[in-house]
Amino acid sequence: MILKDIGEFGFIRKITRGCLIRPRNILKAIGDDAAAFTTPPDEITLVTTDLLVEQVHFLRSATSGFNLGYKSLAVNLSDIAAMGGTAKEAFVSIGIPADCPLDYLEDLYNGMKTLAAEFDVNILGGDTTGSKTDLIINVTVTGSAPEKEILYRDGARPGDVIFSTGFLGDSRAGLHLILNGIEADSEALKALLSAHILPKPYLREGRFLARQNGIHSAIDVSDGLSSDLGHILRENKVGACLYSEEIPLSENLREFCVRLNFDPVKYALSGGEDYTLLCTVSRDNADRIAADYLKTFHRQLYLIGEITDSGKMEMVWPNGEIRDIIPSGWNHFGTEKVRDRI
Amino acid sequence: MILKDIGEFGFIRKITRGCLIRPRNILKAIGDDAAAFTTPPDEITLVTTDLLVEQVHFLRSATSGFNLGYKSLAVNLSDIAAMGGTAKEAFVSIGIPADCPLDYLEDLYNGMKTLAAEFDVNILGGDTTGSKTDLIINVTVTGSAPEKEILYRDGARPGDVIFSTGFLGDSRAGLHLILNGIEADSEALKALLSAHILPKPYLREGRFLARQNGIHSAIDVSDGLSSDLGHILRENKVGACLYSEEIPLSENLREFCVRLNFDPVKYALSGGEDYTLLCTVSRDNADRIAADYLKTFHRQLYLIGEITDSGKMEMVWPNGEIRDIIPSGWNHFGTEKVRDRI
Repeated sequence: MILKDIGEFGFIRKITRGCLIRPRNILKAIGDDAAAFTTPPDEITLVTTDLLVEQVHFLRSATSGFNLGYKSLAVNLSDIAAMGGTAKEAFVSIGIPADCPLDYLEDLYNGMKTLAAEFDVNILGGDTTGSKTDLIINVTVTGSAPEKEILYRDGARPGDVIFSTGFLGDSRAGLHLILNGIEADSEALKALLSAHILPKPYLREGRFLARQNGIHSAIDVSDGLSSDLGHILRENKVGACLYSEEIPLSENLREFCVRLNFDPVKYALSGGEDYTLLCTVSRDNADRIAADYLKTFHRQLYLIGEITDSGKMEMVWPNGEIRDIIPSGWNHFGTEKVRDRI
Repeated sequence: MILKDIGEFGFIRKITRGCLIRPRNILKAIGDDAAAFTTPPDEITLVTTDLLVEQVHFLRSATSGFNLGYKSLAVNLSDIAAMGGTAKEAFVSIGIPADCPLDYLEDLYNGMKTLAAEFDVNILGGDTTGSKTDLIINVTVTGSAPEKEILYRDGARPGDVIFSTGFLGDSRAGLHLILNGIEADSEALKALLSAHILPKPYLREGRFLARQNGIHSAIDVSDGLSSDLGHILRENKVGACLYSEEIPLSENLREFCVRLNFDPVKYALSGGEDYTLLCTVSRDNADRIAADYLKTFHRQLYLIGEITDSGKMEMVWPNGEIRDIIPSGWNHFGTEKVRDRI
């Protein structure tokens, strides 16, 4: 069945099922000129938005509808996580080319709804329209957090330690497999693909970190470790020194790098779309936070370096040598794309 | 200069100027993972979003950047107006093809900023990315209103009168000029073009109406009078009778229709993108509201018909004949586009 058969309003009726999963505090969901909902009176509203365009962010032929829907919401939830917030309402704009099958679109909404349900997020509205050539998805997510617990990029100070909530580089390795048509013929490669396709938003972890004493700044790794840490350094006019041996590398990434003869640390540095959280924490709170984090999530909080007053990004290598890192990663309009420079 | 020369972050720096015009209550504007702001504790949050895609909603060759930016915000402000809200924060996602000149984009943001300034709206964030072929703009706007004053589509009752805040059909006439390459060689035709290109969001009027006793429902006319009134009828399982002689037709539209041999009432019925507000009001409050509206805005509130229990949409013609109206207007995925059926 194609979209033309059921029309715009038929399509909206079809996808509306399962969008409102937390009706408390919602005065109006899909079906009016705007959604209407209450926000906790003692909390700050957070809003983020991300646009995904076919041929730029994804290839329809290489991505299932489910995975595309899941990821288009995940990247927004990750932004709310990086602010220390609770994600609340999602708004989905979709531009649909005439040749896009209805099944693909239903699958796309199922991917979104699956992730939304996991984090108690309503899909509360959006816009559906045609598109001449490319499938287009824009997702906006609102969230909230108590004012004193919001995590900003600014606030990092020399002496802070830098934590990552998860492995770095896996997602880029997964993308490498897709772009180069390499079959994921082992559990390790399958896990890398999955890290790229179905990234995990660290919402509960962000909320946990936001409540800790001594946390100074946070960002999610969307463009790559060196690029996103670079934002924190510029914002705070500080430097950083990363410990090469402490960069969290999965066994999967190591296997991938051995096979393809890549340096896994460089891969982790200039990757992208990891959607882990980076945060900086005063050193005297670091051990306590890491221990509580482990107790709460049964996963490690990785201490990967420290904030310095050097004004530049550096890395200590196993031989004790310290070398500058030139931040690299994704720049949508630059001549270079993902780069390996160190 | 093209975008590649200044890169994504250079572009963001360039457009950020003039985005934050109401810093009170804003904790974080552009430049973090999400925007953070307070909402009035006794008000309800409203959110709407609209996606505009090149070749579907506009032709870059036929639209200046300024007008495109202005309109992409205006359509969202109109949705907040239709809820009776005050517009607050805007979030702009833009997908930019490589051949799009920087001047065009700056002009586009100037159009948005000009309208945003008129209504005290901040541009508080967004997403900038590439696009393979088409220019893509998605705008999300938040607003707020006291709970008891929000205007929904549901609430219309038989006996209500139907008001329009402005002329109907002008925008469609302007579109007709563009699509048929007809030169706007008179003041009348220029005004029709302008109604299409720079639609006025009725935000102050929506707020005024929202505060009135006896107002039952509202919607903005984006798809056309008969189509949007149709939403209200379906939502409330009621009918409506429109008075053909009371449909507000501008002198400009009348001149256009004489020249092109169109029926202006049919034009107004099946038009689109008027962005006037339609509302239904209990009859005993109608005179007072219309008088106060005139006093406040020095413009008329047009009483165009009444809600009935007939379950269908009808129109009384000058000869007293009553004929059914089949709602028509824009359906993005239908086989028919704007239609003239009565």
